[in-house]
Amino acid sequence: MQAKSGNARAGKFLTPHGIIETPIFMPVGTRATVKGVTPRNLHELGAQIILGNTYHLYLRPGHELIKKAGGLHNFMGWNKPILTDSGGFQVMSLSKLRKITKEGVRFQSHIDGSYHMFTPEKVMEIQNAIGADIIMSFDECPPYPATKEYVAKSLKTTLEWAERGRFAHKNTDKQALFGIVQGGVHEDLREESAKALMNMDFPGYSIGGLAVGESKENMQRVTGFLNNILPQNKPRYLMGVGTPMDIINNIANGVDMFDCVMPTRNSRKGTVFTRNGRMIIKSARYKEDFSPIDEQCNCYTCQNFSRAYIRHLFSVNELLGMQLASIHTLHFYLELVGMARKAIFEDRFEDFRKEMSEKLGEPIYY
Amino acid sequence: MQAKSGNARAGKFLTPHGIIETPIFMPVGTRATVKGVTPRNLHELGAQIILGNTYHLYLRPGHELIKKAGGLHNFMGWNKPILTDSGGFQVMSLSKLRKITKEGVRFQSHIDGSYHMFTPEKVMEIQNAIGADIIMSFDECPPYPATKEYVAKSLKTTLEWAERGRFAHKNTDKQALFGIVQGGVHEDLREESAKALMNMDFPGYSIGGLAVGESKENMQRVTGFLNNILPQNKPRYLMGVGTPMDIINNIANGVDMFDCVMPTRNSRKGTVFTRNGRMIIKSARYKEDFSPIDEQCNCYTCQNFSRAYIRHLFSVNELLGMQLASIHTLHFYLELVGMARKAIFEDRFEDFRKEMSEKLGEPIYY
Repeated sequence: MQAKSGNARAGKFLTPHGIIETPIFMPVGTRATVKGVTPRNLHELGAQIILGNTYHLYLRPGHELIKKAGGLHNFMGWNKPILTDSGGFQVMSLSKLRKITKEGVRFQSHIDGSYHMFTPEKVMEIQNAIGADIIMSFDECPPYPATKEYVAKSLKTTLEWAERGRFAHKNTDKQALFGIVQGGVHEDLREESAKALMNMDFPGYSIGGLAVGESKENMQRVTGFLNNILPQNKPRYLMGVGTPMDIINNIANGVDMFDCVMPTRNSRKGTVFTRNGRMIIKSARYKEDFSPIDEQCNCYTCQNFSRAYIRHLFSVNELLGMQLASIHTLHFYLELVGMARKAIFEDRFEDFRKEMSEKLGEPIYY
Repeated sequence: MQAKSGNARAGKFLTPHGIIETPIFMPVGTRATVKGVTPRNLHELGAQIILGNTYHLYLRPGHELIKKAGGLHNFMGWNKPILTDSGGFQVMSLSKLRKITKEGVRFQSHIDGSYHMFTPEKVMEIQNAIGADIIMSFDECPPYPATKEYVAKSLKTTLEWAERGRFAHKNTDKQALFGIVQGGVHEDLREESAKALMNMDFPGYSIGGLAVGESKENMQRVTGFLNNILPQNKPRYLMGVGTPMDIINNIANGVDMFDCVMPTRNSRKGTVFTRNGRMIIKSARYKEDFSPIDEQCNCYTCQNFSRAYIRHLFSVNELLGMQLASIHTLHFYLELVGMARKAIFEDRFEDFRKEMSEKLGEPIYY
C-alpha cells in the first residue's frame, strides 16, 4: 500500500507480467478477448490487467489448448497481467443441472449440454494451464436471495475448497492465488469467511457473492464491514462490480480491484458511460450532433468521431459502432480509477467522490 | 502515368486529399465505414483511398446530414481520398420495383420500401454533398445476361445521363467526375460507349457492368479491348473487381483502380486471402495451429496472433475474429497492388503475374 485517504487505498501489486497500480478496473475478456477491442487498444487505453473467465475458457477453446499455446497471454497476444476467476459464479448463473456436493459441482455446459465436474483441484489444474497472474479459489457462489442457513453451509464448503485449492495449486511462484470471501449479506458469516481465509494466508482476497441482486446499501455495508477485517497489506478484489459510482463507493470502503462486463456490454448495445453519466449514443437525439461523446475525453473515439457518426453506425448496425463505443467507455472506466488513485495520493478522495457523485448523478453510499 | 510493363501501368492521381499511386485497391466503406476496421487501421494498412456507396449513404444517414457534418471525410474521420460510386449498380441489384425512364430511375428502398428517384442531376447533388474526391456519373447498369438490344438501348441512356451529370456537377475543382463505360460483353458497344465518353473528356474512366455474372474470359476480353481505346493519360477504374488474381489479370490489361467487398466480406465470414491462396481460417483444422495466418506477412494480425486463436474467435463468434481477419486480408490486397506497382517500375510485370498465379493457384487470362 502506498497511500490512504479515509479508507480508500492506493497500492501496487507485482506480478510476473508487470505491476498493477490500484485501485484498478480490469476489462473483462471472457473468451480470451475483451469484446470489440484489440490488445493494442487495451494497451493504449492504459489497461494494466484484464480478466478471463475460467468457466468459458475451459469449455472453449479448452485449457489444454491454451496450455499448448504457451498460456493465455501468448494465446491472446496480451503481455500484461491477467486474472482468471474461479468459475463458481458462472456455474451458478449459466450452467444447467448443477449438483453441488462436498467434492465439487457437477454441471451441464450451457453450450452443448455436456456434463462436467468442477472440483477445487480441477479448477486449479485449469487455471494453472491457463496461466493467469492472479487466480481464484473455487467457491460456491450462493444465489441471492438465499436463506442464512444455506449461505452458512455453502460457506463451510467454500472454505474447505479454498484449503484444497491451496494444496492443489502447482504454480505458486508465478500465479498468485486469492481466497474468495463469501457469506452473503450477513456480517457474522462474512467475518467467519474472511478470518478463516486469512488463516490460510492468501496473497490477496476477493469479495464474492455480491453484485448478484442484493441492494447497493447491502453491498456497501458488506465491503465496509470487511474493510475492518481484511489485512491492510493485501489487495482486495470486489468481483463483478460495477457502475462507475459503484466502483468509487467501494474504493471508499478499501477495495482495490474491480471487474465488470457492464462497460463493454452496454457499449455494444449503444449506451456509453461518461463523466457526466450514461449516454444512449444510439439514440436519434444525436442524429445531427457533431460534437464528440465527451468534449473533455482524449480517447481515440472522442478525438476522431462525432456522436452523429457513432449514432449512424449503430443505426445501420455496423461493427465500428460497437468498437468505438467500447473504446470510449473502457477509457472512461480506466481514467476514473486513475483519477481515484490520484485523489487518494492527494488525500482528497471524499471530495472526489462527492464531485463524481454529482457529475454522474448517482448517490454516495456510506 | 509513370511507368509501363506490357500494358500494365503505374501512375499517380492527385486529389484534394492526397496522391493516389496506381495500381491501387480501394477498400469498400459502404455505409461510411470499412466494415470491421478503424480509419487508423486503414492508414496503417497503407490504404490510399477508400470507397463509399452513394445509394447506401443517400438512404442512411442521408447526404444532407453528411453535408452538415462537413462532408464524408469529416463525418467518418478519414482524411485521405474517397471515391463514391454512382448508385447505378445498387439500384439495379438491391432495390425493388425499379422503373427506368429517360429521366432516371424510380426505385423502392431495400430498407423500408420508401420511394425514391435517382436522376443524373440528383446523383450529382448527392455526391456533391458527400464530397468524395472522385465521383461517378449516374449509369444504368444492365443485368447479366441481357439482350444486346437491351444493352445498346441502356447504353444510350447512360451516355445521355453522363452528359447531364457533367452539367449538373457543381464542384468540378474539388471532385473529379469519372464517366462509366458500359456495353456489356459487346466490343462494339463498349467502343461506342468509351468514345462517346472520351468526347466529353472526363478526368478518368470507369469500366462498369462487369463482375455482374459474366465469365472471367469475357471480363478479360472487355478490359483488354478497352485498353486500346481509353486514353493512356487518364486513370481507369474497374468497378467491383475482384479476387487477387482478377486484380492482377486486369492490371495486365491496363486497369489502374479496383474496389471489391470480397476481402472484407469473406474475412468476416472466416475466409482470409493470403499470397498462397484462400484460407478458411475458421476451420477446425487450425484448432491447434499456433503459426500466424502467413509467416511472411507483417500485418498486425500476423505479427501478434495465431491461426488457432483466430479460429477460436470465429468458433465462439467474437467480434475480434472479424476485425483481425479483415485487417489481414486488406493488408494482403494492398500489399499485392504495391507489389504489382513495383513490378511495373521494374518492368517485370508478366513474371510477377506468373509467379502470383502459381502461388494463388488461379489462372492467368490473356
